[in-house]
Amino acid sequence: MADLIEFRMDKADDPLEQLAAYDGELPIIATNRARWFGGKASDTGRLDDLFSASRYDAVEFVDIELETVRAKEWLAHEFRENDVQLIISHHDFEETPDRDVLDAIIEQCAEFGDIAKVAVFPQNQRDTLTLLEAVNDATNRGIDVAGISMGEIGSHTRVIGHLYGSKLGYAPLLADDNDYAPGQIPLEKLASLIELTKNEHVDGQVIDTIRSEVSVPKELTLSD
Amino acid sequence: MADLIEFRMDKADDPLEQLAAYDGELPIIATNRARWFGGKASDTGRLDDLFSASRYDAVEFVDIELETVRAKEWLAHEFRENDVQLIISHHDFEETPDRDVLDAIIEQCAEFGDIAKVAVFPQNQRDTLTLLEAVNDATNRGIDVAGISMGEIGSHTRVIGHLYGSKLGYAPLLADDNDYAPGQIPLEKLASLIELTKNEHVDGQVIDTIRSEVSVPKELTLSD
Repeated sequence: MADLIEFRMDKADDPLEQLAAYDGELPIIATNRARWFGGKASDTGRLDDLFSASRYDAVEFVDIELETVRAKEWLAHEFRENDVQLIISHHDFEETPDRDVLDAIIEQCAEFGDIAKVAVFPQNQRDTLTLLEAVNDATNRGIDVAGISMGEIGSHTRVIGHLYGSKLGYAPLLADDNDYAPGQIPLEKLASLIELTKNEHVDGQVIDTIRSEVSVPKELTLSD
Repeated sequence: MADLIEFRMDKADDPLEQLAAYDGELPIIATNRARWFGGKASDTGRLDDLFSASRYDAVEFVDIELETVRAKEWLAHEFRENDVQLIISHHDFEETPDRDVLDAIIEQCAEFGDIAKVAVFPQNQRDTLTLLEAVNDATNRGIDVAGISMGEIGSHTRVIGHLYGSKLGYAPLLADDNDYAPGQIPLEKLASLIELTKNEHVDGQVIDTIRSEVSVPKELTLSD
């Protein structure tokens, strides 16, 4: 049901040891989010750890914040030498930028990386359409983009984003749903909903929930 | 699961007799669509029959095309005297009008009726966002509007339209899904999907399909 696992190194007790122990089949997105972007990693050693992570075969993608790579442009080249693809991400936890700003952010993410990821907070329903428009237009311009409108108001964009070209969907594997961020949809439910909203001839069947399970690989268990 | 039943008089063998026989609990939307808008009713007697239908207690809404009421403005007053609410509808089976045109259409529908209904055909994904934007903005201006982006491309707007303020969702009750128009979603599935995309705290549960059934009231069976 999942195609990739995002491993939040900043939330793990011993991320590099855990990656070394990982022998699952799903490729990994390594993310080591700094405190200044909602993560738990302190700046010291954060990028070194991410770089070490990118050496593992299982790690096929690395997520780097646009702000980070913009300050250290050489990073992108260094990471690519470890044979990983780059997700360049931008988060805005307060608002959804205007369309022209959002477009510029996506363009810049795509300039540095293979996939541009934008997660922005909607203050109203209109903002969720702005995000979807930006994703749709970027896709039409040939950019691989993943877009999320966060929070409760934007929750449905996680389901229908793929219809507008969004390339990655994120869903929590955590057993305790109290740990979900607002608007996040558990993997099983998200997979069902995406399946059900695909543009196919409707079949009149009762919803057939995807029940196969993906659990957190034991090696990648997070500390909280 | 359904709140209203739309009775397509133009597809029924003997619509007025059938309405007289109806003793179901769900209120009815009476629609008698002309051939020039995708229906089967000939012009002769079409509005007279619709007017007769509006006299039945069960009929709480009547659907009249914007083009019809624009040509015969007195119609709206006459129908209201039979204590029904008016859904003034506009269909475009070929394209999605530009935003300013769509806005003007919705405004005009709302001028004549209680609910403005627009069903327009998307030529691409961007068009589906134009429809949702128009619905969202009209809702913010205080208009009761129902909006559908038709066809396969627009199918998901039937699910998420309510998040942008769309007031009516349409779903077929027909047992034979070959009769569904492209993009239509069967009632049971639509009800489940709408329930699942409501802006509520996610509960981590496996999808719980709404399984209660609504079948076509026997009196209102259509001829094809």
